[in-house]
Amino acid sequence: MKYCFGVDVGGTSIKMGLFREDGDLLEKWEIVTRQENHSDEILPDIAESVSAKIKEYRLTREMVTGIGIGVPAPVTEDGIVNGCANLGWEYKEVKREMESLTGLLVRVGNDANVAALGEMWKGAGAGQRNLVMVTLGTGVGGGLVVGGKAIAGAHGAGGEIGHMCVNYKEKEVCGCGNSGCLEQYASATGIVRIAKKRLEGNSENTVLTSENLTAKQVFDAVKAGDQIACEIAEEFGNYMGHALANIAAIVDPAVIVFGGGVSRAGEILLDYVRKPYQERAFFADRAVKFVLAELGNDAGIYGAAKLILE
Amino acid sequence: MKYCFGVDVGGTSIKMGLFREDGDLLEKWEIVTRQENHSDEILPDIAESVSAKIKEYRLTREMVTGIGIGVPAPVTEDGIVNGCANLGWEYKEVKREMESLTGLLVRVGNDANVAALGEMWKGAGAGQRNLVMVTLGTGVGGGLVVGGKAIAGAHGAGGEIGHMCVNYKEKEVCGCGNSGCLEQYASATGIVRIAKKRLEGNSENTVLTSENLTAKQVFDAVKAGDQIACEIAEEFGNYMGHALANIAAIVDPAVIVFGGGVSRAGEILLDYVRKPYQERAFFADRAVKFVLAELGNDAGIYGAAKLILE
Repeated sequence: MKYCFGVDVGGTSIKMGLFREDGDLLEKWEIVTRQENHSDEILPDIAESVSAKIKEYRLTREMVTGIGIGVPAPVTEDGIVNGCANLGWEYKEVKREMESLTGLLVRVGNDANVAALGEMWKGAGAGQRNLVMVTLGTGVGGGLVVGGKAIAGAHGAGGEIGHMCVNYKEKEVCGCGNSGCLEQYASATGIVRIAKKRLEGNSENTVLTSENLTAKQVFDAVKAGDQIACEIAEEFGNYMGHALANIAAIVDPAVIVFGGGVSRAGEILLDYVRKPYQERAFFADRAVKFVLAELGNDAGIYGAAKLILE
Repeated sequence: MKYCFGVDVGGTSIKMGLFREDGDLLEKWEIVTRQENHSDEILPDIAESVSAKIKEYRLTREMVTGIGIGVPAPVTEDGIVNGCANLGWEYKEVKREMESLTGLLVRVGNDANVAALGEMWKGAGAGQRNLVMVTLGTGVGGGLVVGGKAIAGAHGAGGEIGHMCVNYKEKEVCGCGNSGCLEQYASATGIVRIAKKRLEGNSENTVLTSENLTAKQVFDAVKAGDQIACEIAEEFGNYMGHALANIAAIVDPAVIVFGGGVSRAGEILLDYVRKPYQERAFFADRAVKFVLAELGNDAGIYGAAKLILE
């Protein structure tokens, strides 16, 4: 039995896992993301941690298939990052640098695509080869697995579903510079934005108040039967469901996995998305399953490990 | 050097090609599509034609890598068709049946995806690994190649871009049963539909008349500077360009190839799509190239041959 490492690089911490090739997670740990000097310490820090773990487990290098790495940026098929705002990287040949630091095979992917691969391997999409993962956090991330492979795309920007335009009449500008992006309605921030607009019109007969409002409060109110909260959830669900129907027409997934903080609202969130999805989905795509992510914060290390085993 | 066959099954004729593995087309020919008995003769007819050609070229079976087949229906990764309206097939294990008829390796794909693969191999997308092909004919077909592979999807319905919803306010129903599908605006039929609506409002100062109107007439009038024809082309371009910006956000292609009868309008058609695309594309996708298909009716046999060489 051989071993491999899955690494999930985030802005504040780097999650790492040592796996057996069959997917057994032997140990997981974290190291701090040192952002000084344009984050130039990140790759050497990972290399050092991998080396230490190889010694600790008395493995030889021949027993290690390699290291898979997920990073919060577009990544080309060759493992190159062309700028990563979260880490301060500009052009960086992550695969080449890491291979020369460790002498091990390295593969690199975008963190959202890598998380999708993790859920396909050992999570909510286990056994499937065609999967879309939607990560509803501060933004809307997307990961696509097609025919068992994570999609990188020509510029490493495959799966950027948060920046599909879903409202051509929107006036407010998205972080990307365009207007009407899915992220403006379906992220935690987007849901709060919808809610505040709704509450401007009518803030009676609801437990919700604009001040310090969170997406969690909206869905808690939905569960308590608050009518205005339900209308806000419907608007979110329409944008998300319609966008997913178009995504399904393009990539035809077997399962759509919902992860990220907002998805902790649970099954009720899926219900609000499913109805508009079914109204608009192409007939061949209506059988798609909507499920909640199962691996939580570990999806990244699982998917990164799978990346090296592909 | 080994050889392979590329087969493109259509409703009236079956196009066939004998290729060398390097992509040289040695000979192409057609046989009639016999639709009697639920088209049960199609596969035996192909097998017979392949056998005859093997004899004619004095090949041995060991010299033949296999047969790639494109069919006008969703096809699963296992080469199964679950109904094909154009041919009258219901459930059909095309790969298995054809392998048992010929003793050769067989792979089967959807015709639009296969054509995209052909353009990637030897046509307008040569050298690229990430490509979207849009076929503008009676309908709007889509073929996706991601990481060098044609996308089948979970139900064989990958690339059905003609059935993305692009207008949630549309009242008229598409052939698929939904409303507002891209196909209702961007196909030959769709362009005529847009034009007729436009001419209802104002049929003065234009060479176009509603009677027997064709998409070709619309683009001919555009080239002649007809203002109303230009407005019709703009409406087409907006729907198509905005849909492609969303497709690019999902699969991040390097190149978008336009084929099918409507694309014979040439570069001017691309100009009308490019502008709204650029207005809406995610920044990482703005460098995508728009090109006209190069293989014409041969894209299917080239792509089918490539299917077997993958």
